[in-house]
Amino acid sequence: MQPLKLTLALDMMGGDHGPHTTIPAALAAVCEYSDLHLILCGDEAILTEQLKLHGVFPHPQLSIRHSSQVVSMAEKPSVALRSKRDSSMRVALDLVEKGEVQACVSAGNTGALIAMAHFVLKMLNGVDRPALISALPAIESNPVYMLDLGATVNCDADTLFQFAVMGAVMAEEVIGISQPKVALLNMGEEEIKGSDQIKRASMLLSECNDINYIGYIEGNDIFTGKADVIVCDGFVGNVALKTCEGVAKLILRRFETSIKDKVTAQLFGWLIKPFIKNLYLGVNPDHYNGASLLGLRGIVVKSHGNATKEAFLSAIRQAVREVERQVPAKIKGRLEHVLIDKA
Amino acid sequence: MQPLKLTLALDMMGGDHGPHTTIPAALAAVCEYSDLHLILCGDEAILTEQLKLHGVFPHPQLSIRHSSQVVSMAEKPSVALRSKRDSSMRVALDLVEKGEVQACVSAGNTGALIAMAHFVLKMLNGVDRPALISALPAIESNPVYMLDLGATVNCDADTLFQFAVMGAVMAEEVIGISQPKVALLNMGEEEIKGSDQIKRASMLLSECNDINYIGYIEGNDIFTGKADVIVCDGFVGNVALKTCEGVAKLILRRFETSIKDKVTAQLFGWLIKPFIKNLYLGVNPDHYNGASLLGLRGIVVKSHGNATKEAFLSAIRQAVREVERQVPAKIKGRLEHVLIDKA
Repeated sequence: MQPLKLTLALDMMGGDHGPHTTIPAALAAVCEYSDLHLILCGDEAILTEQLKLHGVFPHPQLSIRHSSQVVSMAEKPSVALRSKRDSSMRVALDLVEKGEVQACVSAGNTGALIAMAHFVLKMLNGVDRPALISALPAIESNPVYMLDLGATVNCDADTLFQFAVMGAVMAEEVIGISQPKVALLNMGEEEIKGSDQIKRASMLLSECNDINYIGYIEGNDIFTGKADVIVCDGFVGNVALKTCEGVAKLILRRFETSIKDKVTAQLFGWLIKPFIKNLYLGVNPDHYNGASLLGLRGIVVKSHGNATKEAFLSAIRQAVREVERQVPAKIKGRLEHVLIDKA
Repeated sequence: MQPLKLTLALDMMGGDHGPHTTIPAALAAVCEYSDLHLILCGDEAILTEQLKLHGVFPHPQLSIRHSSQVVSMAEKPSVALRSKRDSSMRVALDLVEKGEVQACVSAGNTGALIAMAHFVLKMLNGVDRPALISALPAIESNPVYMLDLGATVNCDADTLFQFAVMGAVMAEEVIGISQPKVALLNMGEEEIKGSDQIKRASMLLSECNDINYIGYIEGNDIFTGKADVIVCDGFVGNVALKTCEGVAKLILRRFETSIKDKVTAQLFGWLIKPFIKNLYLGVNPDHYNGASLLGLRGIVVKSHGNATKEAFLSAIRQAVREVERQVPAKIKGRLEHVLIDKA
């Protein structure tokens, strides 16, 4: 059953700040989209109280679905999967599965979300493993989609190939790039470099007419716009993304230290600091954008655990965009097409 | 035969700038170390001419070893290994092997250097594969050693364990940290995360009393000083290091763009720009520091292909330090000790 209206489920209890962040973001979202309905999953008493505090209870675009449990940020995915069947996260995913909503958004425990989403929603035909994808900032170009950012640790060549197809669909449908340039992240640009899986994935992509495959790309070219879609396994993607965060923090801290050291800088610190802060946010996509879980029979957007209201709102917007563009159906269609083409 | 004096071989023709960079760096090095002798490997005519241009020919601390070939930056390692036996790179490595010098430094083709060094110098007993290690900057702490940065793509648990031992020796001997904290780079800090190799390497390290193993570390903690030595396979390390370079460039460019956009920033750009430039250099270790090739029966330091005079000089200094601290012998000794301990 497809709901007539645009309806999303939100995991209200997930993330470091729970309803303190998710309630304001939900209210901002229903202001922004007059046709959006949100089902708020979580502790009914807490959510009602919070909505009343904001003076918006009842609200015509919001409803509450009670859940008695919360998946904690430190919880093991396997434990959450077994024992948290009435958690706000699980209830939100179940709503997607039942077709009561078209997507769900959570800022909760990433590992648990991936495990639960995989279990509840199942994989699309033609996709072996799920992938987390996020849009990274780029120098003078559209954002760059990178996947997998940590859903699947070990990827064989077929999985990397499927990720490439899914990433291309996202770039086309969500950003609107026609014929997006797809690259494999590798430790060199030469054909002979890299692991056997990567070499084989490169071969598969070279042979596929439906994908604008441009070859290998190195870490220093992630942000240059050389590629629109960058494909890697979840281990490498996760390390690369978190390293970005580390470098941005290092630069911010070094900058603060050098300000303290120099008198002229102290005088003008008020001018420089906001710049650096903005730069930091701009290159810290993990904190800013949501990451989408691709390859499933439903739309799941993951917001950062430490997400602010703005970041959670941005994840809701992303879910809306994916619903409007019907991303899972497009992925399914494209994969079928590519596989027929290959056969 | 161990030379009595401190003697290094330099690959003068390697890197993007060849003698234009390596000659000034060599001259600065012999000024800095009065007991240092350098054997300059490369085209004798070019090197003599360059030294004459600098007005220092002959120089008591410098000698030239002619070589007729150059390994180009784009050359395949296997081709260089087979067909460039009289290249400046190979001649410099041969001098290490023959004991005529105690170390060599090159800014040439990394893949070719690793392949040639492996072939010419051979592995130390107890080490399966070579590793590239470099000191990265850290927030309010000593630099952090990270390895492998690209010498060995696929590492099993034993190889990662050996890398951990080699990294610890470097941190102790070169930076002087007693009981350096050693961590494995992973996509989460929990015991259950990561590939099988990493989990098994973690077990091996936990059981080893000689290594101060602190567990897993994530990409965002590379620069925090949480660990003194960070161990990963060459693929992940290479991607992480190059991603750092990419982020630093992104920040620099974004900064330049925002300066253009804002009038106040335009006015004060003269003040802000040097800060950002310094920050960029400070977080761009690949360009700044040399990387050492560990696990071989000799000392090889790799300077960045695009190295400036300062960067190449810094690589020479690093080679001197490793000779003084007898790093390969210390690694050999420590590995023997650890292996006896394990048995």
